[in-house]
Order: sequence, then structure tokens, then C-alpha cells
Amino acid sequence: MIVVQKFGGTSVKGTERLREVAKWVVENKNKGKKMIVVVSAPGGMTDSLIEKAKEINSNPRGRELDMLLSVGEQISAALLAMGIEELGEKAISFNGSQLDIRTNNDYNNAKILSIPSKKILDKLNDGYVVIVTGFQGIDSEGNTTTLGRGGSDTSAVAIGAAVGADKVEIYTDVDGVYTSDPRIVKKARKIKSISYDEMIEMADKGAKVLHCRSIELASKYEIPVELRSAFTWEEGTWIKKEKTMENSVVRGISNISNLANLRINLKNMEELVEHLEENHIEVKLFQQLENSKFSILTGKEEAQRFYKVLKNRGYFPELTDDLSMISVVGLGIASNNIPRKLTKILNLNEINIDSISSNQTSVSYVISQNKLNNANAIFHRELFE
Amino acid sequence: MIVVQKFGGTSVKGTERLREVAKWVVENKNKGKKMIVVVSAPGGMTDSLIEKAKEINSNPRGRELDMLLSVGEQISAALLAMGIEELGEKAISFNGSQLDIRTNNDYNNAKILSIPSKKILDKLNDGYVVIVTGFQGIDSEGNTTTLGRGGSDTSAVAIGAAVGADKVEIYTDVDGVYTSDPRIVKKARKIKSISYDEMIEMADKGAKVLHCRSIELASKYEIPVELRSAFTWEEGTWIKKEKTMENSVVRGISNISNLANLRINLKNMEELVEHLEENHIEVKLFQQLENSKFSILTGKEEAQRFYKVLKNRGYFPELTDDLSMISVVGLGIASNNIPRKLTKILNLNEINIDSISSNQTSVSYVISQNKLNNANAIFHRELFE
Repeated sequence: MIVVQKFGGTSVKGTERLREVAKWVVENKNKGKKMIVVVSAPGGMTDSLIEKAKEINSNPRGRELDMLLSVGEQISAALLAMGIEELGEKAISFNGSQLDIRTNNDYNNAKILSIPSKKILDKLNDGYVVIVTGFQGIDSEGNTTTLGRGGSDTSAVAIGAAVGADKVEIYTDVDGVYTSDPRIVKKARKIKSISYDEMIEMADKGAKVLHCRSIELASKYEIPVELRSAFTWEEGTWIKKEKTMENSVVRGISNISNLANLRINLKNMEELVEHLEENHIEVKLFQQLENSKFSILTGKEEAQRFYKVLKNRGYFPELTDDLSMISVVGLGIASNNIPRKLTKILNLNEINIDSISSNQTSVSYVISQNKLNNANAIFHRELFE
Repeated sequence: MIVVQKFGGTSVKGTERLREVAKWVVENKNKGKKMIVVVSAPGGMTDSLIEKAKEINSNPRGRELDMLLSVGEQISAALLAMGIEELGEKAISFNGSQLDIRTNNDYNNAKILSIPSKKILDKLNDGYVVIVTGFQGIDSEGNTTTLGRGGSDTSAVAIGAAVGADKVEIYTDVDGVYTSDPRIVKKARKIKSISYDEMIEMADKGAKVLHCRSIELASKYEIPVELRSAFTWEEGTWIKKEKTMENSVVRGISNISNLANLRINLKNMEELVEHLEENHIEVKLFQQLENSKFSILTGKEEAQRFYKVLKNRGYFPELTDDLSMISVVGLGIASNNIPRKLTKILNLNEINIDSISSNQTSVSYVISQNKLNNANAIFHRELFE
């Protein structure tokens, strides 16, 4: 049985944590598992490297930024290997270049193209724990590339796919996916199992526990992923292919704070899309209100920035601040009566709905920021308690 | 004209220093030079990484230690590249793997075997400043290796040799090689030019301004090296092939503090050599006093450690503490009257000589540690003032 375990930044920050991780990995190996371990940079290091880069360059990016950022994972990997060796087990660490983790050359946000598995499998068969730097690879010319923030999750799943792993375990500072954000809803409970599509939807709608691309990849190769805590080590949430697709269940509630809405009159959509791309605005919700009137929901700061840009160009945008979005996620949710029920609940509780959107796996309500916690509590009580 | 500039740890520690270095490199490039820059890890980083390794492993060494230590130079290289880009010039950083700087697999103390020059020359011809991580390479299987402390000097000279550079400039926190240690002898003056052999001898006898291996390599390929300050940027000391080999000149004075002498009765030399190797004792001076009596001069701590080892094995070593060695360096020094003159000076000044040794390029006196500064002052006055 081959298992990939991925450890995030807080899980490998400092000697004490690394020692805990080393112990856990060796325990698992001693149960007869072949162990591949993917590590992030020690918590805070990537930010501090970016800080250093900004001190010397007004706009750090591209090849040299990746050359810089890739070192953090290598530090974690080498130290963890030494920690495992200290426990009397064989360990070997590899960086993206040594394993030829091939990506495109889209620096700072590269996509994995291929991972040769032979070197990893050979070392596993020789009894080694194989430790791999997450977040990075090389392009066809050997330049170092990185996958973007949170990319180590994607590395772990991609390596799992390449070697045909039985499971990918993602260890982090939360112990699973919850029915709602436990910081907001005290009675939120851990979800035992969730489908790939639901997890992607939960993440997309605000539950930032996993890199979305990693779940898309896991779904493509049908590798079971388990999200677990590297602090309590208890069982977490399984993310896997669901067998009972017809039996729609509400899985969880996600939410995004600090949103804003911009309404703009523009000649056509192409013009708007052009403006959005040019200004790197990530749109959460897009609506065409009438013929040449559009509404976009985006982060508050982005909205304010875009508002100024549009005004300077002679448009008259209307900005609505202090919005949030609450989403209920579950396979097939749109095709049963849940959206209707939820809308009714919000109306009964006098929570104004700015807009509604839904797809096969989620239904989302844009509401006032100051109503968000209330809505969360109410939805959770109705759906899960 | 191709120039290699190497910057040590203190020269690239912190944004301010990196900015200064970037400016200097660009100035040089603007004079029409093709610039290769070799960098060390930011000052203190290698030590702090070793510290971290020791926290998690009782004896960090081998492959994983090199994997860990190689990151420091990559940080310097990437940040310097960004600093140069900020000044509007093209720069690209390469690590040992990307340039295929091939070494043997003697981890932590590897020797460079070959450096392909094409990639470097192509980028120089494309107008790039080429920045290379010092101190590291890869073995034939792609494992990361490091060259041992101070190895970046050797990297710089080896790269210079590979590309046929006209000159290697080694920038550090001292501004040249001095006639004696300026901290001890106030009137010590900067040496303008020194031969490879003299420099090797100066370094071997205590002037730790350069990695010895780098000068041996420079000598082999006859590449002129200049040791300069990265703080004042003024002209430093040239290390190159001397033309007037017959005209012997006293070049400088080196010294080593905190030495100790061990005298031991042993059956034969082989036995002693075995004990020395086993206990990793680096011998500065070795003498066979009579048939089975040997004297070894070594660092004080090493001597004390070795003393205990020998006692525990039933020998009766005699330890003399608080010694030092002063050496006068100059090509052909042994074959003229200088050793005789120096011995006379020490006698006249009532400085006891524990032992004398000499070779073609230096004459060394082992004297009491508390006489060292005095001997330095007297020698310097007689020879240089």
C-alpha cells in the first residue's frame, strides 16, 4: 500500500513539529505502508521571502521569484529526512528538479505536466521514506517553477496519481471539513465524507481548507484524499468518489466575507471582460441585469480599486459595500426543494437577499455582511441540528 | 572580457548590501565586461541551518545536510538577480544543478569535476548578468553536493576556468591580503600582488582570507584572482603568476593562535597516523624527535581531546599548551639567509623557539602564545618598515 502524506507550513514549522511529523511517518511506515511525504515550506517562510524580494525589487515575479520561493520546501524536506534518519529509518529528500516534476513555464502559477514515477518507486522498494518538496517543479529547460499559493496540495495529489497511490492524506492545522465555519457556528460538526464535486464547491464558495486544483486532480484520477490534523492526528474528512449519487444530501455551508457589488452600464460584455482582465479582478458572481447593465460581485478591495478605474475612464459605476455570500453545498441540491426552503428561511428572518445563484452542487445568497453570522446559524440549525 | 565576481556572506547579507552589489555589478557590465557573479549564502545563514539540523539530528551530515545547506546561495542568487533587474539590466540565476556543476559524491566536502560552459556563455552573449550559486554542485546521480566551508571561492575560480574568464574578483569584508594581521600589527600594509604559491602558504599558515583550494585551482589554470572589499570597493590584492621567480622577496607574515604540542612514545609512525585519522586530528606540524618519540602540533582543543584518547589507551603523552606559530612567507625564502636572520631576531628578543620548520616558500616558528604579538611586531618592523 502506497500512501502520500502532505504536511502544510504550520505542521513543519520548528523542530518540535518536525519531530512529531517524523514520528508519525515512521509509525505509518512500520505498519507496512510505503511512505511518500510531501512538504510545504516552514510556516511564514514563503511570506518572509516575498517580503525580502519586495525590498529589492518593486515588482518581484517570474523566473527569479520562483528560484527564490522554491527553497522553503527544500529546507522542510531535508530537515524532515534528518528527523526520520534520527529515528533509525532510511529517508531521502528530492526537490522538483531531482524528480523531474515537469510543469509548463507559467512562473509563479505553473501547471504540472508530468511526474516520472520510477525514481520514487525504486526508493520506496529500497525501504526509503521518500520526501518530496511540494509547490514546485521545473520547465522543459530546467528552470525552477512554482505552482502558486497552496500548490503543495496539488503536488501531493499529482505525485499520488503518478505512482498509483492508494490514498493521499493532507495534514494541516484544521482537523477536517466542517458543516460550517466552526469559528462562526459553534455547533458545526466534522464531515466524515464528501464528494470531490462538493469539496470543490465548498472551497470555491469560501471553505479555504484545500487547494481547489488538488481536488480537481484527485477527482480526475479518483484518488481518495483525507484531510487531517497534524496536531491531534485524529481521523479527518474523506474526499472521494460518492457512490450514492441520486440520494442528494446537504453537505455543508460555506461563506465568503468582505465582498462588494459593482453595477455598471457598458456597451457590451466583451468590453467589461476586457476591463476585468486588464485589472486582474476575480469575479465571484456575474450578472447581466438588463441590456447593457452588468453586476459583478468581487472582493471589497478589488471592487474599490475597479470602481476608481472605471470612474477615471468616464463610466458611472454604482458600488455596494459590505456584502457577503453564504452558500449551501450538496450534490444535486439545485434539483430539489432546498433552494426554495432556504430562501423562505431568509425571508422569515428578515435577511435581505441581494442576489441568488445556484448550480448543480450549490446555492448561494449574497446578503449584507452584518447578517452573515446570523444566516450561518439559522441555516446550520435548519439543515444539520 | 569575461569577469567573475564572487561575493561572500557578509557582502550579500541584507537588502542594502545586495543593492550595493547589484549597482557594482551593473557598473562593471556597463564598462563592457561580460559579468558572471558567484554568491555565497547570506552571512550567518549556513550556521543557522546547521543549528536547525543539529536540533533534529544528533549528527547531521551526508546527502541531506547538503540538500539543506545548498538553499542559502540560491536565496542570495535570486535576490541579486531581482536587484539587477530593478536597475534595468537582464539577469538570470542558476544553481549547481541547472548548470550541471558536476562534483564527486563526497557530501559536505565534494570536489568539482567539471562545469559545462555553454549555458553560461550563451546567456552572457544574450546580454545577461549570469548569477551562480557558489559552494555547490551535483553528483552523477543528480544529488546535491556542497564543497565545504568557504567553497564559494573555489566555485568562482572553477567557473572562471570553465568559461576562460580573464579575471576572478573575490569580494569580501577585508580589502586585501596584508603583510601581517592588521588587528595585531597596526603598521601592516596591503600587499599589491602575491604569487599563487605564496598565497597558498599564507593561507595555510593562518591568513584565512581565501579558500586554499580556490588558489590551487587558480594556479593550475593561471587565472588572475583579485581579493577586494565589497564595502570600500577599492583595489585589493592581486594573486597571480609571478614573473620574477628568482628575485626572492619576503611577502608577508601569517600566524596561528591557540596551538598545543603533544609528545608521545609510540612503537611506530603508522600507529600514530592511525590514531590521528581515527580521531580527526589536523596536524599543523609533525616531527619525529627520536626513534619512537613523536611530536605533533595541533589546535589546542584537538590536542586536549587527543591527549585524553591516548591516555585512555595506556599511553603517556606530554601536553604543552598555549603555543602559537608565526610564519614568514616568500618565494624561495628557505634558500637565502632570511631564516637565519629571523632566528637571530627571536633569540635577541628572548623569545623561546619551541620548534622551527620551513619549506621552499615559508619559514615557521612555534613560540609561546603570549609572545606572538611581540614577535609579529618585531618581524614586521625588521622586514617591512
